[in-house]
Amino acid sequence: MKSISIKNLKEHFDEEVVVSGFVDNIRNLQWVQFVIIRDNESKVQVTIEKSEEKNKEMVELIENLPLESTVKITGKLVESPKVKLNGMEIIPETIEVTSKSLEELPFNFKDLDNVNIDTRLDYRFIDLRNEKNTLIFQIQSELTKYMREYLYNNEFTEIHTPKLIGAASESGSEVFEVKYFDRKAYLAQSPQFYKQMAMSAGLNRIFEVAPVFRAENSNTSRHATEFTGFDVEFSYIDSYEDVMNLEAELITYAFEKISDKYKDKIKEVFGMDLVVPKLPFPKMKLADIYKELEERYGYKVEESEKTDLTTEAEKLCYKLSKDMFDHEFLLVTDYPADKRAFYHMRDENGVLLGYDLLWRGVEITSGAQRENRYDELVKNAEEKGLKDDVKFYLEFFKYGCPPHGGFGIGLDRLTMLLLGIPSVKETEFLFRGPNRLNP
Amino acid sequence: MKSISIKNLKEHFDEEVVVSGFVDNIRNLQWVQFVIIRDNESKVQVTIEKSEEKNKEMVELIENLPLESTVKITGKLVESPKVKLNGMEIIPETIEVTSKSLEELPFNFKDLDNVNIDTRLDYRFIDLRNEKNTLIFQIQSELTKYMREYLYNNEFTEIHTPKLIGAASESGSEVFEVKYFDRKAYLAQSPQFYKQMAMSAGLNRIFEVAPVFRAENSNTSRHATEFTGFDVEFSYIDSYEDVMNLEAELITYAFEKISDKYKDKIKEVFGMDLVVPKLPFPKMKLADIYKELEERYGYKVEESEKTDLTTEAEKLCYKLSKDMFDHEFLLVTDYPADKRAFYHMRDENGVLLGYDLLWRGVEITSGAQRENRYDELVKNAEEKGLKDDVKFYLEFFKYGCPPHGGFGIGLDRLTMLLLGIPSVKETEFLFRGPNRLNP
Repeated sequence: MKSISIKNLKEHFDEEVVVSGFVDNIRNLQWVQFVIIRDNESKVQVTIEKSEEKNKEMVELIENLPLESTVKITGKLVESPKVKLNGMEIIPETIEVTSKSLEELPFNFKDLDNVNIDTRLDYRFIDLRNEKNTLIFQIQSELTKYMREYLYNNEFTEIHTPKLIGAASESGSEVFEVKYFDRKAYLAQSPQFYKQMAMSAGLNRIFEVAPVFRAENSNTSRHATEFTGFDVEFSYIDSYEDVMNLEAELITYAFEKISDKYKDKIKEVFGMDLVVPKLPFPKMKLADIYKELEERYGYKVEESEKTDLTTEAEKLCYKLSKDMFDHEFLLVTDYPADKRAFYHMRDENGVLLGYDLLWRGVEITSGAQRENRYDELVKNAEEKGLKDDVKFYLEFFKYGCPPHGGFGIGLDRLTMLLLGIPSVKETEFLFRGPNRLNP
Repeated sequence: MKSISIKNLKEHFDEEVVVSGFVDNIRNLQWVQFVIIRDNESKVQVTIEKSEEKNKEMVELIENLPLESTVKITGKLVESPKVKLNGMEIIPETIEVTSKSLEELPFNFKDLDNVNIDTRLDYRFIDLRNEKNTLIFQIQSELTKYMREYLYNNEFTEIHTPKLIGAASESGSEVFEVKYFDRKAYLAQSPQFYKQMAMSAGLNRIFEVAPVFRAENSNTSRHATEFTGFDVEFSYIDSYEDVMNLEAELITYAFEKISDKYKDKIKEVFGMDLVVPKLPFPKMKLADIYKELEERYGYKVEESEKTDLTTEAEKLCYKLSKDMFDHEFLLVTDYPADKRAFYHMRDENGVLLGYDLLWRGVEITSGAQRENRYDELVKNAEEKGLKDDVKFYLEFFKYGCPPHGGFGIGLDRLTMLLLGIPSVKETEFLFRGPNRLNP
């Protein structure tokens, strides 16, 4: 007989059932043992009457069983309104110990408030047993599923671009070097060049969900040396407006699905309100944002800083977007292009034909129309002092390449904001930072 | 107005349409120009009457337009039974050149038979414009979609495990070394340890689709230094039979979907018959296979070689499975465990509690129940001389870890077999090998 997910037990009252899971708790009373079994979504009580002769072996087994061992229990499921835990209990016939916990846990994963994050990460396999942490990854998986679903529905092809690259590409300083037989390779810091290669190849509309690597020696709540990028690129756009619109639709689609399934759970477990955004997303020019921030909230910065949003300005944009548009998202446009990567298209005044998307006061994505004219691209690259490293990339534009654009979202950061988690250290399955390569 | 996919044009006869694509061909006749436009799935003819005054500019534009430039065409779509290409043509109002091909193509991508594979890979962005090559990646994307769909339907969670790891893990020799700030890191050669960590963490059923890295200096049609792994792991199995069954079901589910959509196209373009396999997949013990191969086909090998399938034996298994079971797949069991990784479970006779799956005479996957008993695992690791590098991994099994198993499939290899492509060089978006890091 196969094990049943605990959450599905209620369809099986008065039947013989098999349940597998961790031993979450044991209460050993004078006449009875209560054993709580936990799987990845729910818990159930197993009740063993000590007085019954046939239970003798089981009683002894439970008496000596360390918590967090795993068991497989066969027994009868009965409805028991007196049982607080879902009003049911299993009266077991057999208990098989499928693995034994050999040591005391290094910390109590049910109460992580006072556990140091590094200890938690050292023992991530225990940390993830926390109900909240398990849920983070279930929701992240579903979110990714629906983001992909939107793209499949819109004729996108999923590709897998190489992470081992021959040149340090966009900017040497942030790239990890790999010993590649008798030469050097590097780890791709984004799939940017290859997404665009797909456009030149005529693949038309593509996306990729894959690791990206950043050799940045910085320790903030939002940065990691490795994270999961959700990258989109598509051809035959008329302007970067098409890119903004598609991204807004994608997010709205996925959030709607997540809301249907998890809205209450997210509120209950994380205390966060999941608001499905309205379309279209509001958008503002960078300069207008600074004007409004000053007029409305008295927030002033030096002219020289106004080429980008300061972290403080980003945060205030959450309030601004709520106040002006009753919206949690804000598209920011009209950045000066010279601060941006050379492959973005710019207009004749040097204004970026692209955008940043803020959600809840944090930048979650950058998008743009790309420069697809070979001569302009060469000029832009030279201006940034890029030459040999991007030579292979410039080739993509010599033999015809459709107008195109795209964007990238950090999946871990998106999850962090969705669930109100303070750091990507908790929304990556296993965080990687300058001082963190284990487990 | 938005561009319409060429394959959807037939819903728009006698309407004004906008079509974008590459200039696939131009026939410049005395009275008329025929321009063939190609997008990622289809082609359409644009017909320009030279005699019409209003066409003068367009005629000149086309006369000077290099093939493989991209254009955006607005015009009227008319049904024209005389036009061989789908019985339709566009009478253009305007033609906008959205990118210009600046150089002659290095080779004719419509006829690749005589083009060296290295030249093709050097110019992969042109090579992929070949209809067949474009289709490879559309089908690969769909295949992955349906493989994931099966898993979502069966309560699996998709995770993203780190590719940067702190220890050389399974076996130092095949691992790429990374310069990680002031220390060394390595690239994961499989997500094996982390898939299992997810089991210890109680995530129950997980999968991952991600790059894996192999520092093998070998040049065969099946090997690459980087490829896309499709990895599955799940808990509370009773034996590796559960793993085999799930994999067989997953493949059957995905093939059924691919067959519905692409069976005819795969036959037409690749000349391959896509057979949806019947469940259950046939299975044989390794020793019995050698017995049958000898009896049926006179294939003999030394006893000492019978600890694994020889490449020749693998190939013959295609015939064997067809002859014995009328099936293209064959599950091979009862390998001697000492030739396998230390983390696989073995029975008391040293027989592996796992399997290889062959399809069309090629091994596409290995699966097994994993050793989840700490003491046994330590013993197995020590037998292989593994110590410090796997220490972090052994920790996962100290605090309870459910019985579990899983398997991994190479997506590029699966695509190769599905479409009858000779090498993974053509089923990876961008192949990576010991001598190939570009573009």
